[in-house]
Amino acid sequence: MENKEVKESVSDILLKTTSKLAQPESYETVYTIPLHGMPMPDSEVLVEIVNTLRQIIFPGYFGTSNVNAGNISFYTGVNIDKVHKLLSEQILRGLCFDCIKENKNSCKDCENNAEILSAKFISLLPEIRERLSTDVKAMYDGDPAAKSFGEIIYCYPAIRAITNYRIAHELLQLEVPLIPRIISELAHSETGIDIHPGANIGNYFAIDHGTGVVIGETCVIGNNVKIYQGVTLGAKSFPLDENGNPIKGIPRHPIVEDNVVIYAEATILGRICIGANSIIGGNMWITDNVAPNSRMNPNR
Amino acid sequence: MENKEVKESVSDILLKTTSKLAQPESYETVYTIPLHGMPMPDSEVLVEIVNTLRQIIFPGYFGTSNVNAGNISFYTGVNIDKVHKLLSEQILRGLCFDCIKENKNSCKDCENNAEILSAKFISLLPEIRERLSTDVKAMYDGDPAAKSFGEIIYCYPAIRAITNYRIAHELLQLEVPLIPRIISELAHSETGIDIHPGANIGNYFAIDHGTGVVIGETCVIGNNVKIYQGVTLGAKSFPLDENGNPIKGIPRHPIVEDNVVIYAEATILGRICIGANSIIGGNMWITDNVAPNSRMNPNR
Amino acid sequence: MENKEVKESVSDILLKTTSKLAQPESYETVYTIPLHGMPMPDSEVLVEIVNTLRQIIFPGYFGTSNVNAGNISFYTGVNIDKVHKLLSEQILRGLCFDCIKENKNSCKDCENNAEILSAKFISLLPEIRERLSTDVKAMYDGDPAAKSFGEIIYCYPAIRAITNYRIAHELLQLEVPLIPRIISELAHSETGIDIHPGANIGNYFAIDHGTGVVIGETCVIGNNVKIYQGVTLGAKSFPLDENGNPIKGIPRHPIVEDNVVIYAEATILGRICIGANSIIGGNMWITDNVAPNSRMNPNR
Amino acid sequence: MENKEVKESVSDILLKTTSKLAQPESYETVYTIPLHGMPMPDSEVLVEIVNTLRQIIFPGYFGTSNVNAGNISFYTGVNIDKVHKLLSEQILRGLCFDCIKENKNSCKDCENNAEILSAKFISLLPEIRERLSTDVKAMYDGDPAAKSFGEIIYCYPAIRAITNYRIAHELLQLEVPLIPRIISELAHSETGIDIHPGANIGNYFAIDHGTGVVIGETCVIGNNVKIYQGVTLGAKSFPLDENGNPIKGIPRHPIVEDNVVIYAEATILGRICIGANSIIGGNMWITDNVAPNSRMNPNR
Amino acid sequence: MENKEVKESVSDILLKTTSKLAQPESYETVYTIPLHGMPMPDSEVLVEIVNTLRQIIFPGYFGTSNVNAGNISFYTGVNIDKVHKLLSEQILRGLCFDCIKENKNSCKDCENNAEILSAKFISLLPEIRERLSTDVKAMYDGDPAAKSFGEIIYCYPAIRAITNYRIAHELLQLEVPLIPRIISELAHSETGIDIHPGANIGNYFAIDHGTGVVIGETCVIGNNVKIYQGVTLGAKSFPLDENGNPIKGIPRHPIVEDNVVIYAEATILGRICIGANSIIGGNMWITDNVAPNSRMNPNR
Amino acid sequence: MENKEVKESVSDILLKTTSKLAQPESYETVYTIPLHGMPMPDSEVLVEIVNTLRQIIFPGYFGTSNVNAGNISFYTGVNIDKVHKLLSEQILRGLCFDCIKENKNSCKDCENNAEILSAKFISLLPEIRERLSTDVKAMYDGDPAAKSFGEIIYCYPAIRAITNYRIAHELLQLEVPLIPRIISELAHSETGIDIHPGANIGNYFAIDHGTGVVIGETCVIGNNVKIYQGVTLGAKSFPLDENGNPIKGIPRHPIVEDNVVIYAEATILGRICIGANSIIGGNMWITDNVAPNSRMNPNR
Repeated sequence: MENKEVKESVSDILLKTTSKLAQPESYETVYTIPLHGMPMPDSEVLVEIVNTLRQIIFPGYFGTSNVNAGNISFYTGVNIDKVHKLLSEQILRGLCFDCIKENKNSCKDCENNAEILSAKFISLLPEIRERLSTDVKAMYDGDPAAKSFGEIIYCYPAIRAITNYRIAHELLQLEVPLIPRIISELAHSETGIDIHPGANIGNYFAIDHGTGVVIGETCVIGNNVKIYQGVTLGAKSFPLDENGNPIKGIPRHPIVEDNVVIYAEATILGRICIGANSIIGGNMWITDNVAPNSRMNPNR
Repeated sequence: MENKEVKESVSDILLKTTSKLAQPESYETVYTIPLHGMPMPDSEVLVEIVNTLRQIIFPGYFGTSNVNAGNISFYTGVNIDKVHKLLSEQILRGLCFDCIKENKNSCKDCENNAEILSAKFISLLPEIRERLSTDVKAMYDGDPAAKSFGEIIYCYPAIRAITNYRIAHELLQLEVPLIPRIISELAHSETGIDIHPGANIGNYFAIDHGTGVVIGETCVIGNNVKIYQGVTLGAKSFPLDENGNPIKGIPRHPIVEDNVVIYAEATILGRICIGANSIIGGNMWITDNVAPNSRMNPNR
Repeated sequence: MENKEVKESVSDILLKTTSKLAQPESYETVYTIPLHGMPMPDSEVLVEIVNTLRQIIFPGYFGTSNVNAGNISFYTGVNIDKVHKLLSEQILRGLCFDCIKENKNSCKDCENNAEILSAKFISLLPEIRERLSTDVKAMYDGDPAAKSFGEIIYCYPAIRAITNYRIAHELLQLEVPLIPRIISELAHSETGIDIHPGANIGNYFAIDHGTGVVIGETCVIGNNVKIYQGVTLGAKSFPLDENGNPIKGIPRHPIVEDNVVIYAEATILGRICIGANSIIGGNMWITDNVAPNSRMNPNR
Repeated sequence: MENKEVKESVSDILLKTTSKLAQPESYETVYTIPLHGMPMPDSEVLVEIVNTLRQIIFPGYFGTSNVNAGNISFYTGVNIDKVHKLLSEQILRGLCFDCIKENKNSCKDCENNAEILSAKFISLLPEIRERLSTDVKAMYDGDPAAKSFGEIIYCYPAIRAITNYRIAHELLQLEVPLIPRIISELAHSETGIDIHPGANIGNYFAIDHGTGVVIGETCVIGNNVKIYQGVTLGAKSFPLDENGNPIKGIPRHPIVEDNVVIYAEATILGRICIGANSIIGGNMWITDNVAPNSRMNPNR
Repeated sequence: MENKEVKESVSDILLKTTSKLAQPESYETVYTIPLHGMPMPDSEVLVEIVNTLRQIIFPGYFGTSNVNAGNISFYTGVNIDKVHKLLSEQILRGLCFDCIKENKNSCKDCENNAEILSAKFISLLPEIRERLSTDVKAMYDGDPAAKSFGEIIYCYPAIRAITNYRIAHELLQLEVPLIPRIISELAHSETGIDIHPGANIGNYFAIDHGTGVVIGETCVIGNNVKIYQGVTLGAKSFPLDENGNPIKGIPRHPIVEDNVVIYAEATILGRICIGANSIIGGNMWITDNVAPNSRMNPNR
Repeated sequence: MENKEVKESVSDILLKTTSKLAQPESYETVYTIPLHGMPMPDSEVLVEIVNTLRQIIFPGYFGTSNVNAGNISFYTGVNIDKVHKLLSEQILRGLCFDCIKENKNSCKDCENNAEILSAKFISLLPEIRERLSTDVKAMYDGDPAAKSFGEIIYCYPAIRAITNYRIAHELLQLEVPLIPRIISELAHSETGIDIHPGANIGNYFAIDHGTGVVIGETCVIGNNVKIYQGVTLGAKSFPLDENGNPIKGIPRHPIVEDNVVIYAEATILGRICIGANSIIGGNMWITDNVAPNSRMNPNR
């Protein structure tokens, strides 16, 4: 084919495909009408928010390196202002995304609500920091390869994933839509660790290596629990409503009590209870309750 | 050692190492001679292409937020032009990379071919959108934690991975070299889901969580199949030719028929068939055919 | 609530939270005092260093596309200079991070040491390139889907992970703190493959797919070994000292001899030996020695 | 001084200076209280707006290069949407900046007003394009060094400056505050040509070289006028009010009638009239009316 | 007006304006048809080219700081490769822009020509460096405020402008279209110094301060000439052809012989000669020849 | 010429030119040997420093928009820390650049000196802010087109130029090398206003339009002086030493007393005095003292 003919035929294909894709019947099920012109939450801004929170929580490790007792309130104050501003905007987008579903006529209150929710979240930061410091300690104590707290805070993917989880969990408790999920997926993508923000997880929580870990929406995890890579705490099955759709929100994931260790690639499914102080061996498939103080081993 | 001596000895090491690394015998097996000066495909541009395709396929979710029936053809038209231009260039690079292997003297036609292949791919976008909308629906129906189609389109890693797969698959069907593989590895890196672009996958395809999923080159997957994290659909072994090299392209991965569910961490290997409507439990190791309507459970 | 009241109450929360977070008792366990004002190593610079090393090792694939026998020493020389400069600075930061732990009064020598260590590392590049070229060959020979060396070098996540490992391993041998770990975590995040830089791995090493692979700190792996996705070579347990803390540095991970293949999701734990020429089936849980030439299969 | 003392004394100075600068009496005259939290207009966004307008006005020269009769409405439509969105936000900021001065309690209407003003401005674009095409023609006809219309559109600083002027002038006519001035200062900085957006300038307007040209707020310039570098059309003096402050808005700059040429570095001051078809020589100082058809020459 | 009505009326205006601007009669005189899809030269790439040339010409000042006798050929080689590649592409665009004017059917040769022209230009770099070093010396000798060669090379706008001129001049000699003009306008914008690339300027050329300097296309300037800010070496008038259009390319700017000094704001017009060793006072208007060794003073 | 021959001949030219440019005799006069590996000051960092200083000096206008009495010390504190850190590094580079000239063996003290000089400069910020607020007031009072202080602070090029001057002047008083000059050239490039940092300028200083203004190194300017575009306050001539080189540092620029106004394009040269309350008309050439209260007019 001649060069000119190629150009013309290409041009023709592009125009025709554009026209097809712009037909309402083509796009209707994969399209969103932004209510009140409010765009979707912005993942890059959420990354920036999480990074700024990391600077607030772990001073000296992330962000400026010359923070000291004299200037720490300057840096913290500026970062908290920044998080409040950015997060209010993203929460607003999340609220408006829900407005679409609820077909609300107006979301005038959304703006004020977003500012208040963002501030409420910020007021929880001292507690989030405290919990994370227990996680750091647990991971240091349980890992012969770790040489200092700092190495864990700065290099370990698990601490990144748990930080995102603890942030996302509090946002979900405040009933912020969509944002918690995006924040946990950011960590999932970076670390391969997939913790649903709805899960309840105690202090001194440790994950080793972590790739492939899945912790479901209604999991309840006690204090001082340690899990390895590839562990699934999932649902076994879920009841359907009369229309054959899954019923949302029913407890369907495991309860893991205090001081449990679960080794690599174990799959634990359903609303069962792994009793305190138990050790679950790797590659196991568990769908029934496990008594406290048990030792489960795949080759026995 | 004195500071000055350090500088001199360092400088000496750098020059000597440069000289070693610039010897042909050092680099010959890890070096490419770009035929006709054409560089390797550019991953960052491919990311941009995939992002633009996502804007075309899911209007309002990605890209501009104020798309409406009045202006959707403007945005679609501009994005399609952009994809055509960028993709033509990348396809050209892929074609020329193959020219090296085939030791072609000239790749004069490559430029026209690249433009045509790029346009042919674009003409498949309405169909790709249609298939993806069935995947979205399947994931919504199968996940009690999902609150809307939008949440799946916008947040779920599986839909990202399947989008990249459906794009890469069509490019591979058009015999575009290298690019399909890079596009599927982009999703693999982001989501931990590794779908070879050569696999054939039906509609209403769902993956949950997804980290660690592997779907091999010659897999055939029916409609309405759902798989969980850590599932491998792999090869068991492969025949070697008379020189001991693996014979390329022989069907060696599973066939999974309609309505099958495969739970977490199951490993299914070889050209076997998982019959329709079967459920495969987690952590299983399967190397033989499974009859339709089976229930496979690791603890039995 | 009125808009003005909202603003005031928000402003109040932000100031109070700032004040709490700036109390020493809030931050003391999650804070680092940078000795001599030296900041933490910078992950983005380490990414740049690794990318530049990839350009040096695989000329024509990464970096400029018009490298040839006439100008390769220019490009190599400039890139080696660049790596030396950037890496010296990062090593210095790593050394100073250790100074904190050792409570050293001064780290005057650190600067010279960092320059020397960086140069010593660079002098190992020809050897690193040679080893990586054996890995490329092994992956080509073992993968029926691979069409050329170039496809493996350019697209395969496993070669990225092994490149980072071979770099990180040499830095660890030189006793550079922190940096090796960060470099291996970069690959872990990108590929889901987690190889501790302390592991000893022979030539012709192949990983297929790779997501979820974990190779522990004291592993010893021979030549011509191949492992699949989800394989763990981990520790089974570890001795504690008199204070109940794990004793660091004891050999506690498997030895894998020459020509071993380990299939997907197998979990191999403890200081055991997988004898030469053995094949370990997928999803297995192995905590005892395996004799040479064994065939281990989960369904038997 | 010892290193440690230096650190302490430096730290001390920084804290003390911070404290001084945070005293209200230090900052009160150089500080703005953003009404309703609305920030100042953003120069970088205004640059982006002007660049997008340039793409709309001069298709093919700026922005995409493959615009043609088939797709020009796509590109124009998308760019107009983009300008409307960005400009509405900037106009809103400008309006709110004025709210501060007027101490308005609320600027609820500002948002709607901004959207309408932005749309009104856009409706003037066809006329702005038409005027600019006369300017291009005038500059081509008057410059022996110019080789094509395209060279003028693409390279000549004067056409950049006049484009910004024609945009800013229409915005000022719509009573948009602050933004017009910023847009003309952008051109001033880039080209050294300082045209106040309040000036009234006819068609076929040409500036050669242009550095140092100043055209004041109340200038009236006819059609087919050409001026050279360093020419000032300024105010001679201005009446003060009873408090000794300059009275704003009084006509105080020259009127230049049709077909006038003014050579380099001439300074023309006050509300005088340069009659049609006159030629003013370079380096002249003119403060009185000039009759039509005059030839003014500095050496006579 | 209600919010909804505003949206609709705005949307209406945008669509109507788009439609007007997409009419051929609206855009025909301000539109370019890129021949063979080749876009306009890219100013940002030209900035990068000029910056790279500055690194080649003034090693140690611009670009890497650790260049030394051992590695200077590496850095120079890499930079020259880079300039050649980038400049070839830009020259090609310039050549194709001319193809439009000449309505050439094909520009197959353009690609080879561009590569050759780019290489020819590079072969002139040693000479350009030599000339620029005479300019640096002249500016140092003539400025009591200058403290070192380095200060002039690194900080003085005049040396930036003259560097761009010397580059642009050689490109124009090679008959490269458009690019020389863009390069000289880059310096014009940055420094306020406007030197047409067609001018012929000897060695040891000095400009002080520089804002407002204009040097016309057919100027001839000897060695050791110094000019101050605001000086114009321009055309007085130019002959028209039978159609009333200016005849292009006729010598119409001054000749300035060796050792002349011209003070601030002097305006010198027409094809006159300023004789060697003359001094022209500031703010003068000169349209006649000046004998060698003259002293011209405005107050006499 | 064949394509392949072109490639070879081009490649040949590039290698030969590289080799010429890498000869010491080619580069020796235009090359700097960075003492102690310290690179040249970085203009982009200096831009960032000046922008941060602008945020400190004019809160609410530049930088964050939600600064208020409650958080202004946080923002000021963080910005001052940032300036101190960045400026110390740049001052160090400036000091080391001088070390080269002085051929110092070591610049061990330079680091401490740089930190102290940077802090000393910061301690002057309250005074700099105070002076600038008088300049803003003067420009508001003298410009009928100005509508608010804010418009001047935010949009007027003159206030940018004077801000850079007042910063650069204090740095020069502290004997910081090179940096002051670069900072004033940044403003020169942006605004066309060229104020040497050595000049002494009183309070309430106003410049209108400004392009082409030159204020020399030894100028002394009183309070409440106003100058227009194109005004030069320059040197007339300067004494040479016995070697024919200009003697550096001798007072050679005008003294301008309080309350003087100088109109556009006036050129005032030499160590003369313009007496208080005088008005100098535009385009004048003045090389003799002007008595107080004079009115100088070009047409008389």
